[in-house]
Amino acid sequence: MSKADEIGGLSNDVLLLFVPLPKRPEWIERISKRFKGLQVRWVCAIKDDKSMVTAKDVPAEVLDGVTLLSTYRPPPVELIPHVRFVQLNSAGVDSWIGHPTYEDPAVTICTSNGIHAPQIAEWVIGAWLFHQRQFLHFTENMKKGYWPPSPFATQVQDSPGMRMGILGYGAIGRQCARLGSALGMEIYAYTRSERATPESRKDDSYCVPRTGDPEGLLPAKWFHGTSAGAVNAFLAQDLDFLVLSLPLTPETRGILSHPQFEILGSRKDGKKPFIANVARGGHIDQEALIEALETGTICGAALDVTNPEPLPAEHPLWRAPNLLLTPHISWVSSFLPDRLLDVLECNLERLGTGKPLINVVDRKLNY
Amino acid sequence: MSKADEIGGLSNDVLLLFVPLPKRPEWIERISKRFKGLQVRWVCAIKDDKSMVTAKDVPAEVLDGVTLLSTYRPPPVELIPHVRFVQLNSAGVDSWIGHPTYEDPAVTICTSNGIHAPQIAEWVIGAWLFHQRQFLHFTENMKKGYWPPSPFATQVQDSPGMRMGILGYGAIGRQCARLGSALGMEIYAYTRSERATPESRKDDSYCVPRTGDPEGLLPAKWFHGTSAGAVNAFLAQDLDFLVLSLPLTPETRGILSHPQFEILGSRKDGKKPFIANVARGGHIDQEALIEALETGTICGAALDVTNPEPLPAEHPLWRAPNLLLTPHISWVSSFLPDRLLDVLECNLERLGTGKPLINVVDRKLNY
Repeated sequence: MSKADEIGGLSNDVLLLFVPLPKRPEWIERISKRFKGLQVRWVCAIKDDKSMVTAKDVPAEVLDGVTLLSTYRPPPVELIPHVRFVQLNSAGVDSWIGHPTYEDPAVTICTSNGIHAPQIAEWVIGAWLFHQRQFLHFTENMKKGYWPPSPFATQVQDSPGMRMGILGYGAIGRQCARLGSALGMEIYAYTRSERATPESRKDDSYCVPRTGDPEGLLPAKWFHGTSAGAVNAFLAQDLDFLVLSLPLTPETRGILSHPQFEILGSRKDGKKPFIANVARGGHIDQEALIEALETGTICGAALDVTNPEPLPAEHPLWRAPNLLLTPHISWVSSFLPDRLLDVLECNLERLGTGKPLINVVDRKLNY
Repeated sequence: MSKADEIGGLSNDVLLLFVPLPKRPEWIERISKRFKGLQVRWVCAIKDDKSMVTAKDVPAEVLDGVTLLSTYRPPPVELIPHVRFVQLNSAGVDSWIGHPTYEDPAVTICTSNGIHAPQIAEWVIGAWLFHQRQFLHFTENMKKGYWPPSPFATQVQDSPGMRMGILGYGAIGRQCARLGSALGMEIYAYTRSERATPESRKDDSYCVPRTGDPEGLLPAKWFHGTSAGAVNAFLAQDLDFLVLSLPLTPETRGILSHPQFEILGSRKDGKKPFIANVARGGHIDQEALIEALETGTICGAALDVTNPEPLPAEHPLWRAPNLLLTPHISWVSSFLPDRLLDVLECNLERLGTGKPLINVVDRKLNY
C-alpha cells in the first residue's frame, strides 16, 4: 500500500464492529494500516448456537472509548457514550427511533442500505413466481407421485405486460424493478418526496454491481406524497403486483388497511393483485390482510415481516390462504459480510477524508 | 380495413386451427376478411374435462381438404394428405420426427418458438429462487406456526456474480439469460453452431415484447459444438446454474449423464451447481441425476420434463432430494392463446405474400 492511501483523519477513533460475522483478522489488519492510528475492535454478534449476543454481554473494556460503531441492534446509550458515527447493519432504522443516540444530532447514523437489495428482491420475485407457478401444489403432487392427465388443468398468468407498483423506491425497490422489468412488467414507483428531475431519481445508496436501477430509469411513472390520498391514488393504478419496500415511520404505519385492500381489489377488469411486504410488519393492518386473502380481494401475498416478530404460533396469519410467510429472513445472504464491510470501509474513508458519507439517515425525513 | 391489407395468396387454402383454445369467432372473421378466399375452420383440442381431443375424434369433413394446419399433436398422415404448412403449437418438434408429414420436404413446418419463452423462463428462475430461498422449508414451518429464534440459521446464496450456463440459446434460453442477468449473474451461452458474428447471435424466432435477448448481447461468452467434448468443456466453466433449453435430437439425447454430472460437481472452489431442465426428459440420464442429487454432486435440480411422461408414481425421481418436479407445465400461460394466434397470423401473412416464414424447422439441423 502506498503512503498516499493512508488516511489520518480517524487517528483518535476507536472502531467497534459488533457484527454478525466471525472476526476477519485480514480485514482488521488492512483497515488498521489504511486508517493510521485507528483502533479496531471486533465482536461477533452471533453465538455458536445462532442466537444473538447483546451489547450487555460485551466486556466493558471492549466498549470503552468506542467512537465509531458498526452494529445490528442498538446498544443501551450508556454503553456507547462517545459514539459519533454508527454504521447500521440493517437497511431500516425503526429499532433506533427514540434511542438517545438516534436523537443526538451530533451522531451521524448511516444504514447499510443497498447490501440487502439483491437477496430481498430475489425473495420478492421468488415469492411471486412461487405463487404464480403453484410450486407448493406441485410439491404436494410429488409426495403422491401424481402426474395430472392434462396440463390444461393448470392456470398460470405470466408477467409480460403486468404492472408492478413499488411503494418506496430505494435500493430494494430498485432491484425489484430491475427484475420485474426483465420479466416484462411495467414499473410504477412511489416515493415520499417528488422525483421530477433525472438528478432526483438517482439512487444515492450503496449498490451491488450489476443490480438495481441507480439512475432511476426503469419506472414508467413516478408517484409521490405523504397523504393517504396520494397512496390511495397510487394503489388505484391497476397494479398486478404491489411491493412494499419503504421505511416504517409514523406516517407509513398501517399504510395498507381495509380501504387500501378495497382499492387494490377493485380493478375494472376483475384481476386481483399480489402483495409482497419486505419492509416492516407495521406497514400492514394484518386483520385487513387476512380478510383480503380470505375474500379473494387480492390473489395472494408474501410477507417476510409481521407484527409482532416472532409471530406467535397461534396467530391466524400463519393459516391465511394464498400466503407465504417467512420469519424476517429475506435479507440473509452469504455475500452479506463482504457487502457490509464494503459499505463500512467506504464510509470510514469518507469520514477520514471529510467527504459526505453514503446512506446517511435523514432523521427529519426518514424516507 | 383498407383494400391494401387484403392478402390474396391463400385463396385456395383451407386453414384448420386444431388448437387447445375455444373458438374465437372474431379472430376467424378478421382472418377470413384479411386473407381473401381462405377457408378457416377451428376445432378446440381440449374437452371440457381438460383432456385432449385426438385428430381421430375430428369429423372427416372438418379435416377434408386442409392445407394449412395449426396443431399441438401430430395427426395421422392419412388424415392430413393435402397439408403444405404446419404451424406447431409447441416449441419442440420431437413428437413429429419420423412422421411422414415431417419427412416430406414439400411441407413447411414452423414451431411456435418464442410464445412459451416468458413463462418457461419464469418457471426456471422461480425454481431457482424456490430452491435458494428454501420456500418449501418455510411452508413447512408455517404449518407449525414456527418462527425460528435466529435468522442466522438460514443459509442463502444470492445471485450477483454467479454464472448461469445456458445449453441451447433460443427464445427460452434468451429470456432465462435476461432474468439471470437482471439477477446480476454472468451468462455463458452454448449453441450447436458457432455464433461468431453479431448477425449470427440474433434471435430469428418470435419474441414477446420486452423479453428475451433478441440481439444476443447478454452472454459474456459463447460456446458451441456437437461433440461430447465441446459440451463437457462448457460444463467445466464453473457454472452455478445450468439451464437446459435445447431441442431433443439424436445427438442431444442423454447430453447429461454420469461424466457430465461429475464435471459439473468438480469445481475447485467446492461450490455445487443447480440444474433446470425445461427441454425434454430424454436430455438427462435420470439415474445419473438421482445419484448426483443423492451424493450432493449438484446442490439441486428442477425438472419440468421427464422420461417417460407421465412419470409413473413409483419412479424414484419423485423422491430424489433437492428436486422440484412438475408435470411438463412450465409452458402454460393464460397469455398463450394470444401469442399462438399472433405467430400463426404472422406466418399466414408471410405465406400469403411470399415472404420467408418465422420459426421454420430446419429438418437437417434441428437445433
